[in-house]
Amino acid sequence: MTELVPALASGKLAVRDLVAALLERVDATDAGIHAWVHLDRDRALADAARLDALPAAQRGSVFGLPLGVKDIVDTADLPTQLGSPVGAGRRPGRDARCVARWRAAGGFVLGKTVTTEFAFMHPGPTANPWNPRHTPGGSSSGSAAAVALGQVPAAIGTQTNGSVIRPAAYCGVVGFKPTLDLVPFGGVAVFSPTFDTVGTFTRSVADAAIVAHALAPAIARDVAVRARPPRLAYVDRFPWTGAVDDGGALESAAATLRAAGADVVPVAFPDALEGLREVQRTIMLGEGARSMGPLQDRERARFSATLNAGLDEGRSIGDDALAKAHASRRAMIAGAIAWLASYDALVAPPAPGPAPEGLDTTGDPSCCTFASLLGAPAVTMPVGRAANGLPVGMQLVGTGGEDSALLSVAAWCEAKLPRWKGLA
Amino acid sequence: MTELVPALASGKLAVRDLVAALLERVDATDAGIHAWVHLDRDRALADAARLDALPAAQRGSVFGLPLGVKDIVDTADLPTQLGSPVGAGRRPGRDARCVARWRAAGGFVLGKTVTTEFAFMHPGPTANPWNPRHTPGGSSSGSAAAVALGQVPAAIGTQTNGSVIRPAAYCGVVGFKPTLDLVPFGGVAVFSPTFDTVGTFTRSVADAAIVAHALAPAIARDVAVRARPPRLAYVDRFPWTGAVDDGGALESAAATLRAAGADVVPVAFPDALEGLREVQRTIMLGEGARSMGPLQDRERARFSATLNAGLDEGRSIGDDALAKAHASRRAMIAGAIAWLASYDALVAPPAPGPAPEGLDTTGDPSCCTFASLLGAPAVTMPVGRAANGLPVGMQLVGTGGEDSALLSVAAWCEAKLPRWKGLA
Repeated sequence: MTELVPALASGKLAVRDLVAALLERVDATDAGIHAWVHLDRDRALADAARLDALPAAQRGSVFGLPLGVKDIVDTADLPTQLGSPVGAGRRPGRDARCVARWRAAGGFVLGKTVTTEFAFMHPGPTANPWNPRHTPGGSSSGSAAAVALGQVPAAIGTQTNGSVIRPAAYCGVVGFKPTLDLVPFGGVAVFSPTFDTVGTFTRSVADAAIVAHALAPAIARDVAVRARPPRLAYVDRFPWTGAVDDGGALESAAATLRAAGADVVPVAFPDALEGLREVQRTIMLGEGARSMGPLQDRERARFSATLNAGLDEGRSIGDDALAKAHASRRAMIAGAIAWLASYDALVAPPAPGPAPEGLDTTGDPSCCTFASLLGAPAVTMPVGRAANGLPVGMQLVGTGGEDSALLSVAAWCEAKLPRWKGLA
Repeated sequence: MTELVPALASGKLAVRDLVAALLERVDATDAGIHAWVHLDRDRALADAARLDALPAAQRGSVFGLPLGVKDIVDTADLPTQLGSPVGAGRRPGRDARCVARWRAAGGFVLGKTVTTEFAFMHPGPTANPWNPRHTPGGSSSGSAAAVALGQVPAAIGTQTNGSVIRPAAYCGVVGFKPTLDLVPFGGVAVFSPTFDTVGTFTRSVADAAIVAHALAPAIARDVAVRARPPRLAYVDRFPWTGAVDDGGALESAAATLRAAGADVVPVAFPDALEGLREVQRTIMLGEGARSMGPLQDRERARFSATLNAGLDEGRSIGDDALAKAHASRRAMIAGAIAWLASYDALVAPPAPGPAPEGLDTTGDPSCCTFASLLGAPAVTMPVGRAANGLPVGMQLVGTGGEDSALLSVAAWCEAKLPRWKGLA
């Protein structure tokens, strides 16, 4: 994308030619993967022609860049069907705020990518591009798969617990979840406002910054690759996950970074944060029930058993329990900031291993819960392949509001690690 | 508030004593005004006691500050009833994102203030504190009235068209609508995501910055009163309003600023922006119908005739018309930026005059439409009283994303204008 953006801006590459090439790539690779739920080829080509006609002075920071958009994010020109029969044929007729920002910066929408049902746990049809018997992860399944296959240079998804970082890791791409609320959430289906966050899928850290800047101007567009080697806190697992089975890829990446000069310090997870997963679950389901309860009342029969069970659990969480969980969250944010104050980022696995076999679940989100509970920025990049050949990643978690600093650290790591060989 | 904040932080003033004084003030002044829809005195005193027990190191930037919160903004500890029988007894059990930020910065919620029905046009019971036969303006009626009466040092509301700037002007307080999306909207009842914006009511520009910073860290907490006199574009009316009837207060303010060194330049409203009001209406009602349509389907009988008519008009706006309006809006944003590029802010009336008599409407929002359509920051401050004795204001509109610069200009103006004599 660092080459694509100037080529499009200067007109050396016509948007129309880019779109035609991407549509060919979709035709060649999407069978059996199903990354897309809606791809209107004529509309995409018409958008491209419109953009090609724009004078140079009106070309924004992501001029001509097509975006894959998770199908819980409203778009004016394409349906938004929420991964549920309840949303079948739904046409909100307006852009979500993040999509409006993307268009204002010169980009357009290639199509809508598969989401799990309402971005909760019940899977959509997407398979993992590395091995279609395995899940791509969720809930932003299609966005991760489409970028992995080179069908689109960038896509957006959302993370409430593990829905950006996990599918990015499972599909071998860069996933970036910015600080909570930097990217506006208006026009995106709400589950839990305390956690719901729009994030990006790209093929490099530099690309993540370009996309994120268009969605959140506070994030710098050009990543300044950190000059001084970073000081990194390192955990090989979270207390609530078992041992991580990634073929030693994370440890090997840590060794490479250390050899390149980074201070990679194994740290113990503080006792005060051990209950973090339960606090996240209480808030997520408690808020989910309050957001989606009225719809569930009407549509229970068309909701999956998983979604009904999650919302029913949420309904059983009273206002006092919810308020207590919020108070715990606030204390945990303060505790985490104090814990990591002398480090540039936390290094951790993005998932307990590669994508599990089977399309009936989307895998374990629990390695993403730390950053989700805090509202802190997190990025994952592919660092190797597990014994079964599927990709595994390395997650970096930064300080809330310090997104550009985190991306600088991530770019430093990316530059020192062996070049990742993706699918496209 | 610039004295209140350090007094609370140091413990010289106990939060409990402040709350007790404010509750007394409510008792003394709220009869016949009805600024509050829900005020849980015991809860407020308990919050205060909890805060008083906090060690100094844990006291945030708005430690101990009580906030009035418009009743379409979700709060975990108080009902959020949306100004409608449809919301009667509704307890979302969670904080909206902006309220969560307020609490994280050390503040708390004094109570919920009256909103019009779903923040649209059908009035609530609130009356204007300067003359209870007149409207306080809407839709953030209670927030404006409560701050005007000194019942609470700050309150928040929302503006989709004219719902912060207008009631602030009508009630003689400072209203501030930040740039679109700087304050997260999650957990607030949505009408039109392209415009819906959380704003503040305070008694000075410096106070507005303190409150806004807690809600949007990108806004500087301490207003740097601009040193060099500003260069201001000046319009005495918008093309779609008649002549403004404010007793000459705006013109007199402009003369004072000019005498103090400001360059106040009468400018003509560009032809290219003349259709701005229709574009705003198309998007607002089109999006409103799409946001609220499903609820209207169920609750038409309990919606006001005004709301039903607005949403029905919105339903008649097709996706193509909506997309066209969005394209016009984008062009108008570019046009407005070019128009005002050589000025520090636009000076304009916040309303066509003082609050009109009668509680059956909330007055004319059309002087706020310019900033609402653009998503640009706007601030109003009281500058005089009309022939009928009610306050009138001066509105300043800045450039999107340049909120702190706008507040600096506003603080300069405030310092040069005669000291405003409020009600409390």
